[in-house]
Amino acid sequence: MELHEYFPMWHKLTDAQQNELRRVASPWSVKKGTVIHNGSLDCTGLLLVRSGQLRAYINSEEGREVTVYRLFERDICLLSASCIMNSIQFEITIEAEKDTDMWIIPPEVFRGIMDESAPLANYTSELMAARFSDAMWLIEQVMWKSLDKRVASFLLEESVIEGTDTLKITHETIANHLGSQREVITRMLRYFQNEGMVQLSRGTVGITDIEKLRKIEMQ
Amino acid sequence: MELHEYFPMWHKLTDAQQNELRRVASPWSVKKGTVIHNGSLDCTGLLLVRSGQLRAYINSEEGREVTVYRLFERDICLLSASCIMNSIQFEITIEAEKDTDMWIIPPEVFRGIMDESAPLANYTSELMAARFSDAMWLIEQVMWKSLDKRVASFLLEESVIEGTDTLKITHETIANHLGSQREVITRMLRYFQNEGMVQLSRGTVGITDIEKLRKIEMQ
Repeated sequence: MELHEYFPMWHKLTDAQQNELRRVASPWSVKKGTVIHNGSLDCTGLLLVRSGQLRAYINSEEGREVTVYRLFERDICLLSASCIMNSIQFEITIEAEKDTDMWIIPPEVFRGIMDESAPLANYTSELMAARFSDAMWLIEQVMWKSLDKRVASFLLEESVIEGTDTLKITHETIANHLGSQREVITRMLRYFQNEGMVQLSRGTVGITDIEKLRKIEMQ
Repeated sequence: MELHEYFPMWHKLTDAQQNELRRVASPWSVKKGTVIHNGSLDCTGLLLVRSGQLRAYINSEEGREVTVYRLFERDICLLSASCIMNSIQFEITIEAEKDTDMWIIPPEVFRGIMDESAPLANYTSELMAARFSDAMWLIEQVMWKSLDKRVASFLLEESVIEGTDTLKITHETIANHLGSQREVITRMLRYFQNEGMVQLSRGTVGITDIEKLRKIEMQ
């Protein structure tokens, strides 16, 4: 993945701006589980995902978590450079869900080019609007959907991302994605197992009836 | 309120851009209760609030509502012009909570100037980041706060907005702000009344012990 592939408006940047971005972008590789960015104290920079997977989540004071969005190959992580926008008034944590290779662009350089280039500024707005839409989707989920639907949805999504029906995932991890608690997720998964939709074993959740799970999701 | 007072970067627009915005901005007055913008089908335009109060909310299929943010004098409503941003993938409804006077700027003119002006594009990003922050605040509230705290918070906020301890508001309206149901709110308010924090009568909620209500909020 070359730099210009992340920016559909690359050709609208001046040569000097293109060269500056190429000059400052540096490769960065992190291991699965690494916390890349932690709240508003950090201003890590703009992250362009080359391979791997990132998760952005928020925490409660009691240490509960809920996933707001995930990023994959070809995605850009803007909130890891939240200092470029004064009005971002929330803390978000970003961690690598898999071993991840990225480009990192220093926030002050990106901000400088945004200040000059309307195309880059507008593209940045679009990136933010996409993440804002993820947050609104989450609000709809937690306001209007019961937990059984959210768990069914999450298992189906994971199985698409991982390309398998046998998910290597703990109940704790599912709870942290959905903003729930381990005990509550365990109870729900046992109910799913009794209904023949999943098969639980140590550290894995096997999907055994995908159609029934989809019905729960759609109900 | 003159147009330039809404845009701190007004002086960075060209004379032609300033004149164009002045030419197309038209005054608009709506009565309390008017639905100004309804989901992504509309693209009403950018709204600059001169006086009054707007509420932006989302609905469930069953007709439940939850308030995402409110706008007051001097605020700009960007999501009523959501068509200027392709990546805004959610539906939001905007209604006047009070009689409201606004300027309205047609979305295509605003989009045209944003395409040319980096300062306006960046300022638009800041506006979106502020609303995104409101949405993240709501996620934190619904994920981590119990309903008693959210009701206490809402009553305290209303009393500041209205400048009175006697709120003219129905239980249904409170439920629609908080994404709850009327019966649930009624039960909570009766509990507050038993604890001496509020006094309920037809169509009003009187705050009788503001300190105790603040303690609930902070717990």
